[in-house]
Amino acid sequence: MLTETIFVGTELLLGNIVNTNAAYLAGQLAGLGLTTYYQTAVGDNEERLSGCIKQALERSDIVILSGGLGPTQDDITKETAAKVLGRKMSKDERTVQRIEAYFDKRGRKMTENNFRQAMIPKDAIILDNDNGTAPGMIMEEGDKVMILLPGPPTELKEMFEKRVIPYLKKKSKDVIYSAMVKVCGRSESEVAELLKDLIEQSGAVTVAPYAKNCEVHLRVTARATKEQEARALVKPVVKDIKGRLGDSVYTTHEDTTLEKAVVDLLLANELTITTVESCTGGLIAGRLINVPGVSEIFKSGYVTYSNKAKRKAVGVKHKTLDKYGAVSSQVVHEMVTGALALAHADVAIAVSGIAGPDGGTEEKPVGLVYIGCSVCGVVTVKEYHLKGNREKIRECAVAEALILTRRCMLEYCSKVTFGKEKGK
Amino acid sequence: MLTETIFVGTELLLGNIVNTNAAYLAGQLAGLGLTTYYQTAVGDNEERLSGCIKQALERSDIVILSGGLGPTQDDITKETAAKVLGRKMSKDERTVQRIEAYFDKRGRKMTENNFRQAMIPKDAIILDNDNGTAPGMIMEEGDKVMILLPGPPTELKEMFEKRVIPYLKKKSKDVIYSAMVKVCGRSESEVAELLKDLIEQSGAVTVAPYAKNCEVHLRVTARATKEQEARALVKPVVKDIKGRLGDSVYTTHEDTTLEKAVVDLLLANELTITTVESCTGGLIAGRLINVPGVSEIFKSGYVTYSNKAKRKAVGVKHKTLDKYGAVSSQVVHEMVTGALALAHADVAIAVSGIAGPDGGTEEKPVGLVYIGCSVCGVVTVKEYHLKGNREKIRECAVAEALILTRRCMLEYCSKVTFGKEKGK
Repeated sequence: MLTETIFVGTELLLGNIVNTNAAYLAGQLAGLGLTTYYQTAVGDNEERLSGCIKQALERSDIVILSGGLGPTQDDITKETAAKVLGRKMSKDERTVQRIEAYFDKRGRKMTENNFRQAMIPKDAIILDNDNGTAPGMIMEEGDKVMILLPGPPTELKEMFEKRVIPYLKKKSKDVIYSAMVKVCGRSESEVAELLKDLIEQSGAVTVAPYAKNCEVHLRVTARATKEQEARALVKPVVKDIKGRLGDSVYTTHEDTTLEKAVVDLLLANELTITTVESCTGGLIAGRLINVPGVSEIFKSGYVTYSNKAKRKAVGVKHKTLDKYGAVSSQVVHEMVTGALALAHADVAIAVSGIAGPDGGTEEKPVGLVYIGCSVCGVVTVKEYHLKGNREKIRECAVAEALILTRRCMLEYCSKVTFGKEKGK
Repeated sequence: MLTETIFVGTELLLGNIVNTNAAYLAGQLAGLGLTTYYQTAVGDNEERLSGCIKQALERSDIVILSGGLGPTQDDITKETAAKVLGRKMSKDERTVQRIEAYFDKRGRKMTENNFRQAMIPKDAIILDNDNGTAPGMIMEEGDKVMILLPGPPTELKEMFEKRVIPYLKKKSKDVIYSAMVKVCGRSESEVAELLKDLIEQSGAVTVAPYAKNCEVHLRVTARATKEQEARALVKPVVKDIKGRLGDSVYTTHEDTTLEKAVVDLLLANELTITTVESCTGGLIAGRLINVPGVSEIFKSGYVTYSNKAKRKAVGVKHKTLDKYGAVSSQVVHEMVTGALALAHADVAIAVSGIAGPDGGTEEKPVGLVYIGCSVCGVVTVKEYHLKGNREKIRECAVAEALILTRRCMLEYCSKVTFGKEKGK
């Protein structure tokens, strides 16, 4: 069954708000096995809105509109939708009472324009709004369905989950199941090349790659009549991808981020970590600390942007800075060992680089970054050449630092396991 | 002139990503005085994409497409657009070289599918991509214009600002001039109330407020036939706003961020700064270090997430932690003074708070954050109650820390100036 979403509001066309409802509804609809081909945003203008509704009703089975149900004069979604379907409106007494109760509870008085929200098109199924005044509604017209939802995300979400999903579940025959495979340390084109046949196949399972902050995410989706069947289709493809990409796959969980994968590795191995950052200036620590529960393994972190800070805070030698410069593998090596000693941690990450726009030379251009990682005494320092503006270079350096830490941790783990096995 | 935006990517229809490009482009286009009536999202499907492009070309003058310029098989925007306009594609050698150089710099090899990105439709104006491989392009067809941009926001933004805005400015007959007034330390509704008459007026000058990361930005726009005229219209309104909002206005420069305003104040007063962060875990340092030239004034920064780190790294007393807890004004006070002494800085910012989801109690709920700032010996500690999830609370805490630092700096400056005047 084809669904289509229309978002109503001039504020969307002026860029005043980000349309998070679009992604929310899209995800929910996909999860219900409903296909969406189009999302449209249109302003509070009767002619254009009416045109969008008519076009959507022609090409889709279920048309969901969000926004424009408020009490003010520029809220015209309900009136326009009723007009397109040729339905009269009348006051719904139960809705009047609900809105009155809503205001009572807040000790506020209902204003005249709120009564407009109790006007309901003929034969519409009313969807009560638990978080606001505007009711939503469902109108069936032949084999087409139109669903009107309020614009504020909290109102829309609760109404959708409580009242629309049960309605749609009855309508849908298929189930969609999808899994997420997250990859780090490989470029999008490299991943696409390795999975070419899977991405290009047009069978029951689809594999869609997209690049995100120096990572590649792959969504593997299958459609079937039962969830179990869809799951059974997805599983071997995920396994195949993991086989081809090896341990570049850092998770198959939707909610796991790269920093969480690193923190989980540290927790599992009971290792503590410290960070010493120059050009990334605290952003690596910032990402690690976004993981709840990180306090168990996160030791102190240091931001040593200036040469003096590198010397004073983590004991980089004057001589090393003079001889090799702050952006060098030697200095990063000393940052790593200095921080380890100071923080009494098992693992250290250090970064020094030229994020630009100034400070680059022919020998050491903007984008040159050294990242060092030490896991239980083994120090690795790598050289990177990153591109983009200052922000982009720093963002990539943070991602590369997490990737290198994960890589060093995996190597450490394989040796530890190997050692243990040999000892048996 | 009518503009229309089309966002290409099945990931949008599956709800995998939030379409922030839509709001970004909408805001930019509105700022240029271009009207948008429709935004559409469509999947990587030739037939449907082609239908959307044709419809957009019929009803709008400038059609901007974003996404689907990547190297993989499902990236079909360029091919589809070229087909709609009946244009052949050929390899652009300069683009091949640019992409090769991009890979060379990263020490990676260009894969076969990257060459697809160097295929350019006939007579297209190429827009170089400074942050990625896919070039953008502009195709003129009679009095219509089609503009293709990459999907990743960092690539899209820089390309739009550097290469598309200059092009669009030449197209428009009227000149639009707009100024940005950035406000911190006041809520959006407070600002809206104070500027109600300016925001609601429908004259030659418009004032549009939008909330952004705990700040309020106001865009003041005027349209005229000459830039000088438009500027003359905007100027008194900006002055009026500054008069009403006082020093909550931290800049009227588009490019100046809150962290840059803080760094500029430090540089102007020749004061150095250090940071000690618990729940924000390096993000304050991270934002400050995004300002080029910060190395002159940024001393060491400390990330002290655990109690032990607070003791070991910046000398918070065991007794203070035991008696008041890590999230307390007393501990933040000691973090400030400890870091000051350690880093030999003039200014220190310290943050400790409960970002959640766990760790909250009735007495100290999630969202409770203490921020401390010391400027030349005067320590201020403030209590905040922030709302949202872990990420949002941390983001707000970073913003509030910068706002408090600015406030303390301004107070210090007013006293210093006053002292000097008195001494005359």
